[in-house]
Amino acid sequence: MNKNISIRLFCEVTLRVGEKISLQTEQSHYLKNVMRCKINEKILVFDNNTGEYTAEIVNIHKRSIDIEILEKTKPRYVPGDVWLIFCPLKKTRSDFLIEKSTEIGLRKFLPTYSSKTQTKKVSLNRSRKNIVEAVEQCGGTFIPEILPISSLAEVIEELPEDRILIFCDESLESRNINECLLLDRPEKVAILVGPEGGFSDSERKLLRAKKNILPVSLGNRMLRAETAAVVALTMWHGMVGDWLKKVDHQNHES
Amino acid sequence: MNKNISIRLFCEVTLRVGEKISLQTEQSHYLKNVMRCKINEKILVFDNNTGEYTAEIVNIHKRSIDIEILEKTKPRYVPGDVWLIFCPLKKTRSDFLIEKSTEIGLRKFLPTYSSKTQTKKVSLNRSRKNIVEAVEQCGGTFIPEILPISSLAEVIEELPEDRILIFCDESLESRNINECLLLDRPEKVAILVGPEGGFSDSERKLLRAKKNILPVSLGNRMLRAETAAVVALTMWHGMVGDWLKKVDHQNHES
Repeated sequence: MNKNISIRLFCEVTLRVGEKISLQTEQSHYLKNVMRCKINEKILVFDNNTGEYTAEIVNIHKRSIDIEILEKTKPRYVPGDVWLIFCPLKKTRSDFLIEKSTEIGLRKFLPTYSSKTQTKKVSLNRSRKNIVEAVEQCGGTFIPEILPISSLAEVIEELPEDRILIFCDESLESRNINECLLLDRPEKVAILVGPEGGFSDSERKLLRAKKNILPVSLGNRMLRAETAAVVALTMWHGMVGDWLKKVDHQNHES
Repeated sequence: MNKNISIRLFCEVTLRVGEKISLQTEQSHYLKNVMRCKINEKILVFDNNTGEYTAEIVNIHKRSIDIEILEKTKPRYVPGDVWLIFCPLKKTRSDFLIEKSTEIGLRKFLPTYSSKTQTKKVSLNRSRKNIVEAVEQCGGTFIPEILPISSLAEVIEELPEDRILIFCDESLESRNINECLLLDRPEKVAILVGPEGGFSDSERKLLRAKKNILPVSLGNRMLRAETAAVVALTMWHGMVGDWLKKVDHQNHES
């Protein structure tokens, strides 16, 4: 990350060096009224397509700001191929799960509900805002997708056959996640964390009937759902994903 | 954890099968007025000394509740020998750091302040309440200690020589934490995460002069301080600590 520039914004449009673009109302307001930016000031911008750039503020209108894209500073980096299937939690715990998972790195969020899920509501707008803010903050160049909520049966049914389902099963006493990941090193995964209160017997049956499932334990304490998500993602990145592999050119698009 | 009993409370006194104890005012209020418990109802209790027990409510007074300790359900389990040195963050982020780290497992919190730390305030009462609630909730039997805040120089100076300082250094581009931990497998560690904004040059100098320091990178995105703490603790438990080792008798006290 360019250490002299502290403002970093996501742009919906594809960026190209030399082009001028107008920022959205909300971003313009932020630059103008919150950060009190002036003409000629530099910021960092990135899209979800080509990477990160420096840009210069070239016009400040009443309701919008124009910037010119100066120089590419980072290619787009797509995190390892991990999805997260989770049940919505209370507001701040869901926010936390989304923010932290985005920082640690993943490709897709799949909210789901099971019999013990407290709420079926996920605000996609709120979640997407959290995701974008986390990516802006952590220096990422990839915006993870979030799907609308669907039932556990549907999510499991529709999971592609070549994607290993890492099931964080709080009833397991052995099969620690690190041992399982070290043995199998699954590169294309979906991590499933249950709701507070765990899964029902019939849900467990459904899960056990699934091919390509890897049930794992997260240790001998019962982690909260959002903690379990963060821990499982971290372990996967450490054992198989982004932190094991060096950043390579397959994952780089320049 | 005994799955039929959902209430689990920490007791300051050492527990013994057959003994009767009076619960504190706050816990008595919780059982009586929040959970509406009745005489003969069973709960789980644990101390920070011998482990976990079932207990029965034997008396409900106006301001207190007496319980009888019935049966030992779990020996005390002391998590792996890891400390966490962190700079206080905004309220909910500090709360989060403490709750999640406690769930994942550690022995001691050492709050510290550096030149870029936003606040030097840590409420030990509030932190300790968070810690106890997290241990009650996750089924643990060990209450991590939290020290009063002191300066980075003091904390580093007073760190025992045989404890490896894992320094989560956001300026590093190689030396991923998993590789470093796999090579060295340090069993007695203190993890240091910086404040938002990182350490100053003179602080880095101080750190680099320390013997037994292991600087590590947490990947190619800039994690927030509380995310860094959780990620580093998780990696250590997966590579060296509680999740690698089976629960052994050294760590068990029965």
